[in-house]
Amino acid sequence: MSPATFLRVLGPEPWSVAYPEPSVRPDDSRYGENPNRVRFVEDNWESPALGAWGLGWEVWLDGMEVTQFTYFQQAGGEVLPVPAVEITYGLERIIMAIQGVKHFKDIQYSPGLTYGEMFLQNEQEMSRYNLDEACVADHEARFRLYEEEARRMTGRRLPIPAYEHLLKLSHTFNLLDARGAVGVTERASKFATLRGLAREIAGLWLQRRAEQGFPLGDAAREQEARRGAVGEAQSSSSAPSAPAPFLLEIGCEELPPEDLRAALQQLERGVARLLEELRLDHGALQVSGTPRRLVVRVDALAPSQRAQRLRSRGPPARVAFDAAGEPTPALLGFCKRAGVGLEQVSVDDGGYTWAETDLESRPATHALEEALPALLRSLSFGKSMRWLPGGAAFSRPVRWTLALHGSSPLRFSFADTDSGTSTRLLRSAEEPTVEVASAAAYDNIMTHAGIQIDREIRRKNIWEEACAAAASVGGAIAQTEATEQLLDEVTDLVESPSVVLGSFDPDFLQLPEIVLTTVMRKHQRYFGVRNGGADGRLLPHFLAVANGPVSPDLVKAGNEAVLRARFEDARFFYRGDLRKPLVEHR
Amino acid sequence: MSPATFLRVLGPEPWSVAYPEPSVRPDDSRYGENPNRVRFVEDNWESPALGAWGLGWEVWLDGMEVTQFTYFQQAGGEVLPVPAVEITYGLERIIMAIQGVKHFKDIQYSPGLTYGEMFLQNEQEMSRYNLDEACVADHEARFRLYEEEARRMTGRRLPIPAYEHLLKLSHTFNLLDARGAVGVTERASKFATLRGLAREIAGLWLQRRAEQGFPLGDAAREQEARRGAVGEAQSSSSAPSAPAPFLLEIGCEELPPEDLRAALQQLERGVARLLEELRLDHGALQVSGTPRRLVVRVDALAPSQRAQRLRSRGPPARVAFDAAGEPTPALLGFCKRAGVGLEQVSVDDGGYTWAETDLESRPATHALEEALPALLRSLSFGKSMRWLPGGAAFSRPVRWTLALHGSSPLRFSFADTDSGTSTRLLRSAEEPTVEVASAAAYDNIMTHAGIQIDREIRRKNIWEEACAAAASVGGAIAQTEATEQLLDEVTDLVESPSVVLGSFDPDFLQLPEIVLTTVMRKHQRYFGVRNGGADGRLLPHFLAVANGPVSPDLVKAGNEAVLRARFEDARFFYRGDLRKPLVEHR
Repeated sequence: MSPATFLRVLGPEPWSVAYPEPSVRPDDSRYGENPNRVRFVEDNWESPALGAWGLGWEVWLDGMEVTQFTYFQQAGGEVLPVPAVEITYGLERIIMAIQGVKHFKDIQYSPGLTYGEMFLQNEQEMSRYNLDEACVADHEARFRLYEEEARRMTGRRLPIPAYEHLLKLSHTFNLLDARGAVGVTERASKFATLRGLAREIAGLWLQRRAEQGFPLGDAAREQEARRGAVGEAQSSSSAPSAPAPFLLEIGCEELPPEDLRAALQQLERGVARLLEELRLDHGALQVSGTPRRLVVRVDALAPSQRAQRLRSRGPPARVAFDAAGEPTPALLGFCKRAGVGLEQVSVDDGGYTWAETDLESRPATHALEEALPALLRSLSFGKSMRWLPGGAAFSRPVRWTLALHGSSPLRFSFADTDSGTSTRLLRSAEEPTVEVASAAAYDNIMTHAGIQIDREIRRKNIWEEACAAAASVGGAIAQTEATEQLLDEVTDLVESPSVVLGSFDPDFLQLPEIVLTTVMRKHQRYFGVRNGGADGRLLPHFLAVANGPVSPDLVKAGNEAVLRARFEDARFFYRGDLRKPLVEHR
Repeated sequence: MSPATFLRVLGPEPWSVAYPEPSVRPDDSRYGENPNRVRFVEDNWESPALGAWGLGWEVWLDGMEVTQFTYFQQAGGEVLPVPAVEITYGLERIIMAIQGVKHFKDIQYSPGLTYGEMFLQNEQEMSRYNLDEACVADHEARFRLYEEEARRMTGRRLPIPAYEHLLKLSHTFNLLDARGAVGVTERASKFATLRGLAREIAGLWLQRRAEQGFPLGDAAREQEARRGAVGEAQSSSSAPSAPAPFLLEIGCEELPPEDLRAALQQLERGVARLLEELRLDHGALQVSGTPRRLVVRVDALAPSQRAQRLRSRGPPARVAFDAAGEPTPALLGFCKRAGVGLEQVSVDDGGYTWAETDLESRPATHALEEALPALLRSLSFGKSMRWLPGGAAFSRPVRWTLALHGSSPLRFSFADTDSGTSTRLLRSAEEPTVEVASAAAYDNIMTHAGIQIDREIRRKNIWEEACAAAASVGGAIAQTEATEQLLDEVTDLVESPSVVLGSFDPDFLQLPEIVLTTVMRKHQRYFGVRNGGADGRLLPHFLAVANGPVSPDLVKAGNEAVLRARFEDARFFYRGDLRKPLVEHR
């Protein structure tokens, strides 16, 4: 929400900023009792108050989010011509992991001094203020004052002081919210105030920058110029002479599970239809993938299009030829439309003219190079994003495209990448980028790298591994719809699954079961472990699914620490709720 | 005003902090028109609003303040047991000097991007807001709200949220002030509000820290322990056997001119009286100094105290002796008080008893070692400061003490230093610290280092150099009381003076003369140059006095840039004042 972010992402001007900015969120106050103070955030970010949204993801370290990336797509209701990227780091969490401490209080801040000794009083006092003591009437009055001043400043065409007041407004709203003083109707009305101002300020900022001729430049235009200079991808020169496997891999930044599934469904239908339309004979078609790659594999794809003769019926012969047997304008028009010469016209027994053409039989590589980009561009998602100025839209940024027919590479451009012959393995691999010599070699490379392309196999592996781990502590996993959904989700969050069994303090079992399972399933994507017996009660264990090769003890300890923090947070709210009579919750 | 400063300097706990904090001062708004935006500050800092004060100084780079040191002595009305030091840097000015640009707009912020391109719009809009557009009634209302909330929080014993609101209060006050909306009575009343709250919050913070047992420790006690471990300075072992020069040098961080003069006067009287009291015969006594050193030089100081016989009159003989000629209790009591034995009692012609004692004749070194610390401690200043926890008080921190009788060092402690045999030269000297073999060697060392100890000679040199420089452009310096005062002041600001002649744009001569001379004399400590003829009008030149060896062209250019900024600022205000009818200035 810094002006260095909100205002500067608007418009075409390029902008890079590194800003060490502490974040103050009244609602995150915990009186210093929760070991992790910063709240976990959603993958996709949206600020209705700022009329802003972006797509991105979290980076988890042993089950804990430590970094977040967001590609901003809109701010103040303005579509951003230059998509802006924000990277935030949870420094406290990273330090806790490095120092191996379980509570932020215990972080060694400097020699002989802990974080708690430095900041605990501040945390406690500001929690008291934010949650208990801040005067609601006073803040309602501030809200009105700041709103008026912000409006006055937009009236004076001063977006920067106006935005300063929008920030004050926003913080005042957050504080009222943390004090539990914002009703449902009021929330909508206050959000509308904030959003309206944000839009007005963003529009005003853009006008003012445009009046100054965008002094920092126009990144979209510069990017366009760069793209023009690179030119179109050249067509492939070689092509197989006999049926050969075909491989298409679209490499992405991690796709959200629902987008992965949507893409696979659309690709499966789309590729089948495309091969038919292109008259390309083929064997089995397999479409599968992981969060980082959409993979299309076709067995024995024909080297070139199936030969086909096309017959089109023209006008009746009595209309096609005049009395002298000369072609009439009707026949000449038909020939032109059908793209044939008069010599290709014949008359059938029924007295109709027919034109016959042999459809072209191009190499499969050329036909696909031409047709694939449109198919890929047609993939649609709940929310698409752009990541380059004036660039393509997709679920998440496309980073590479690999396309091979046998060992012949296809050459086309898609989503600001040129297709090539290399793939990328796990980020932690010794050589993260490898060449793929031929479509047939791909499966082996992936298997060798520990990447399970086929999601049904991946799903089954996770399930079996999880069941075995549960059994090792005398437990089982309940087979419910929620479990199936979670299994689907984790299957689509990893490409190299490892199941890790962890435990938690049995004291937490005193919390209502729904609290525990919600925390485990919804926030952490963990499977709960139940007593395999008749009562099926929860055991103090959980199952996490990590990605890539892991050090089990380390990952276990990390995930346990995170779950503990989550349960502490849940207990904090649960106890708070119990202190309030039910009637007040209405 | 950061809580990391204001609150943490209170109490005995040690605290070090480096905080990159942009400073927002509404009153410094200049619509981006002045090349230097930050205002020059006084040597000694005081915030009546915070009940805080400190002593310190500015570091000038070619006539421009680029850094400031303050030793805080009080905050929130509390005397600080651990004196806190704050160092602030004028980064923009330092960069301007390094990059050789004359306006902050022209600073190269990054390749291809100027500071103006980055921040000018912000500067202009916030100036509009601070000086013209901020709603006064709105800010009056904020002031009331923030005050109430601050009071509520002190009532809840929450100093940190209370201080947050004091900061808001203070900024609101500054903004009202910049809008010209604070009358004289109102200012006093608002200051009283701020100061009262600051005191309350500071007291509350200290209570809360004490309740927690000062978790970060007690720096004053630790310092005390260290001092105890070092122990008392040992007495000198050698002493001259014949009259020899005596030298005492107290080395300080730069003394303010008035403190330097006060110290020299007190020392001159005090040393003369001390030598007499100690019966130390001596030749000429010279007391002089520079901002960095107070120097006492005594010619031919006796090697030891002058021998003296002390006669005290006792009771009449008829009372002193009984009928048997034995001493009465009256005589015995007299002997005890006078510290003599009966054998030293005689009876004079008038019938009175007398006791005679020879006063001790100790070496001068020993006598002075014993007596000097008390004399030095008795020096008094308008404002004294402490710079170590529980340490000594002086005008500015004492950094070394040098005392030699002939080549015999004196050993005593003063102001947290132990006397020694070395002195320090100019900070820019190749070897800033040198040993002084004997008192007689001192003058040569100083002369060789370019340091003019004698302030009368220094004053005369500056005057002659300045007159010559003025004459070189056909001008002269007006011999007025103000000139004399300025000459006194610059004499006491340097120890190695160099006069630099600079020029300014003759356009500025259109400003009233009083404006120009005030800026030159008061803010910059420059001498103005006048037409030597009958009209005596100002010429577009000035004379600056630098310290230490300088590169004249560089210093000239630097001082010219600073004066230009000052004159721009003066013109800004002068024009603003002219736009307002005289009646409104009432």
